[in-house]
Amino acid sequence: MKPVRISYLAAQNAFAAGTDTPSDFLERCLATLAEREPTVGAFVTTNLPAARTAAAQSTERWRAGKPLSAIDGMPVGIKDIMETADMPTGQGSPLFTDWRTHRDAAAVAALREAGAVIVGKTVTTEFAATVPGKTSNPWDAARTPGGSSSGSAAAVGCGMVPAALGTQVIGSILRPASYCGCYGFKPSLGGINRGGSYDGMSQSCSGVLASTLDEAWIVARAISARVGGDPGQLGLSGPMDMPAAQKPKAIAFLETAGWSVAIKESKSYLQAVLAKLKAAGIEIVDRHRDPDIEAVEKAIFDVTTLSRKINAWESRWPLNTYSRDMNRDGLSKVMQDRLVEAEGMTLEENQANLRERQAVRDIYAKLAAKYDACVTLTAPGPAPMGLAATGNPIFVVPGSLLGVPALTLPYLEASSLPLGMQLLGFLNADAALFGVAASIRAIIAPARAEA
Amino acid sequence: MKPVRISYLAAQNAFAAGTDTPSDFLERCLATLAEREPTVGAFVTTNLPAARTAAAQSTERWRAGKPLSAIDGMPVGIKDIMETADMPTGQGSPLFTDWRTHRDAAAVAALREAGAVIVGKTVTTEFAATVPGKTSNPWDAARTPGGSSSGSAAAVGCGMVPAALGTQVIGSILRPASYCGCYGFKPSLGGINRGGSYDGMSQSCSGVLASTLDEAWIVARAISARVGGDPGQLGLSGPMDMPAAQKPKAIAFLETAGWSVAIKESKSYLQAVLAKLKAAGIEIVDRHRDPDIEAVEKAIFDVTTLSRKINAWESRWPLNTYSRDMNRDGLSKVMQDRLVEAEGMTLEENQANLRERQAVRDIYAKLAAKYDACVTLTAPGPAPMGLAATGNPIFVVPGSLLGVPALTLPYLEASSLPLGMQLLGFLNADAALFGVAASIRAIIAPARAEA
Repeated sequence: MKPVRISYLAAQNAFAAGTDTPSDFLERCLATLAEREPTVGAFVTTNLPAARTAAAQSTERWRAGKPLSAIDGMPVGIKDIMETADMPTGQGSPLFTDWRTHRDAAAVAALREAGAVIVGKTVTTEFAATVPGKTSNPWDAARTPGGSSSGSAAAVGCGMVPAALGTQVIGSILRPASYCGCYGFKPSLGGINRGGSYDGMSQSCSGVLASTLDEAWIVARAISARVGGDPGQLGLSGPMDMPAAQKPKAIAFLETAGWSVAIKESKSYLQAVLAKLKAAGIEIVDRHRDPDIEAVEKAIFDVTTLSRKINAWESRWPLNTYSRDMNRDGLSKVMQDRLVEAEGMTLEENQANLRERQAVRDIYAKLAAKYDACVTLTAPGPAPMGLAATGNPIFVVPGSLLGVPALTLPYLEASSLPLGMQLLGFLNADAALFGVAASIRAIIAPARAEA
Repeated sequence: MKPVRISYLAAQNAFAAGTDTPSDFLERCLATLAEREPTVGAFVTTNLPAARTAAAQSTERWRAGKPLSAIDGMPVGIKDIMETADMPTGQGSPLFTDWRTHRDAAAVAALREAGAVIVGKTVTTEFAATVPGKTSNPWDAARTPGGSSSGSAAAVGCGMVPAALGTQVIGSILRPASYCGCYGFKPSLGGINRGGSYDGMSQSCSGVLASTLDEAWIVARAISARVGGDPGQLGLSGPMDMPAAQKPKAIAFLETAGWSVAIKESKSYLQAVLAKLKAAGIEIVDRHRDPDIEAVEKAIFDVTTLSRKINAWESRWPLNTYSRDMNRDGLSKVMQDRLVEAEGMTLEENQANLRERQAVRDIYAKLAAKYDACVTLTAPGPAPMGLAATGNPIFVVPGSLLGVPALTLPYLEASSLPLGMQLLGFLNADAALFGVAASIRAIIAPARAEA
């Protein structure tokens, strides 16, 4: 059975007309959930009574013509790395099973304020890092859903919910979105307040996995309007509704280190799409034509190594106290090894790594003067077989390290499985990136204008 | 009885000689604690069995000639806004009484790794903001100890511990240090990792209250070496030992908005000290002689208003979930009002406030080319009478908003009570500021070279 995403925005005309309600929409989601969850395993826990109550309240508001926001009544999944007042926050670790804080993370509090319906907590890898949870890919249960936002991607990919929250420090939003066939949006660094999210590394960012491009935007923007970005950061700006399509003049094509490991079918599909964009009058420029792009390719080539070193240092705490004060054996081998690596590092080494990262960011930022966005694959191919690993993040690490807005659009395929087309924008110009994405959607995937 | 600070560094020669031990030092601290605590009320909770065990282990290490660091065995208090694996973290709020997380905050984990002895949790105002706890000033029980690091300042001020951790977003380290007669150090923004500290606003910073200048430095630096600064920030750099005295060529005197409300005795005392510095060959320049200083005076004049607006927005979360999901009546009137204020603000207003703050920082940064530091009072006068409020932070808000390193030195007096002399440095040049402070100490308070 081919998974089908479900759009909440598409249903809203019927809410207004009185022929559908948020409660009915929720029940359709829950029917899909009941059917697919035994195989997919997207959720750690749900709170269906609370969700039904929230949906009923939203139904009343729509009936009265007074929805709180465009996402009033939208069923949403929350990555289990973020606190929820009514459900435990397990962080994908046995150390935190059933751990309750009795408060909502900032993004969750914002969603509730906007009227959204919190369905449950979605599976994360251990501490949003590498060791997978129970989730399988809704397109093929023998394949990984990707990680670390595994449950969020799987749930959105097969229509259990129209949107879910995720976080990304390496490739944790875009990669699973590519594998599960949904949209994924990682905002500019600090774009969404991470308060109450246990993903506090310096290039980590909270974001959205969504059934449609429009929903990726409006969910993220509804959050930033209510709780802002990370303290001291400007936070995601722009219209509350989906930005209008803005046809780009020129887009930079980036190979990244991923191009050499991508399968031929992925590359061919992307190249065919780029040919369509060219035919529509958009200039596509690569490393061979512009030395500034070549400089970026060189600068981002080994960002995975640099990112992992920075992440290791930034994991020294809390892994040190988890290991000493909670239970070392409750940490995976991967986390135990990361702690050993971190404890072998110095502040001065990290300072050098941060300076190197800033230099890469500065080189990339120069492209903003010439290009409306950058484009590449989101993954080397479709979701790999096996559930023991979450796939190669090689194409999405650059966006994480650069801290720029990154989008994956489910417009490619390989082996009849979904594959994402990745767009990278420029710092705090997230709305502009959505304008570019909307234009691309109109050119190559008009049927995807779901909302 | 006049409070007396106690230096741990001063005891270390005796540890090496075998005539004193960390266990004996701890017992002297605990004797003072037993005597003064009923009046002072510096601690929310203590864990004396754990402290004695840690001190005994340190004693063994010193005996073997293998201390883990210069603070191995140092008894330390932890502001109750930071998590501790073995004690609850009450945050000065009835909402969090006896709340346990089973892990250490980053700074606490670092202290333990360096061999320090964690004595207990010190009283904080509610959520490190304005509503006071039970602590009184060790110099006069009818006066406030200042806040929000009330218990840390009081405990250090009367020799219960040689050092304690604090946090500052408005004036929460320097003001209580001034009132209680100890050193206070707020590092450059992000200098000490705030992981596990519930003081996450953008101009908040963790720091140290200490019995001596040297201990203020070595405690902070021992932490940054082990857990770094905030993720993505360079973190406090410099020698692990106290930086050498570096005689400044020129110091900028800042009135700040505080000068007009400072009592005459405070101003006279500071001016007498500045005269001594001039006599020693240090140029002291004020707003009347340098237009760049005048520009700073104008830019920082109303930073309290700007800081409070930024803090309000950044308090929207978690106050919204505390109010809705925990217990609104468990929030003070001040916090309830702050939430109402925050909910009346917009992301765009906050963006404008952040830009205004950055403009102030840019104006201040120009002084670095001409001056080694800035100097002013830490408070308008000694600790005010009464325990219902924590005093006026007007002199210390500029350092908080600017994000630069700030030190208060207990070298002034008014009404026979302690008063701090404040030094402000430049971003990430914390060690240089300590070099200046050491030089000033040698000129005006050689007897204060305690360590």
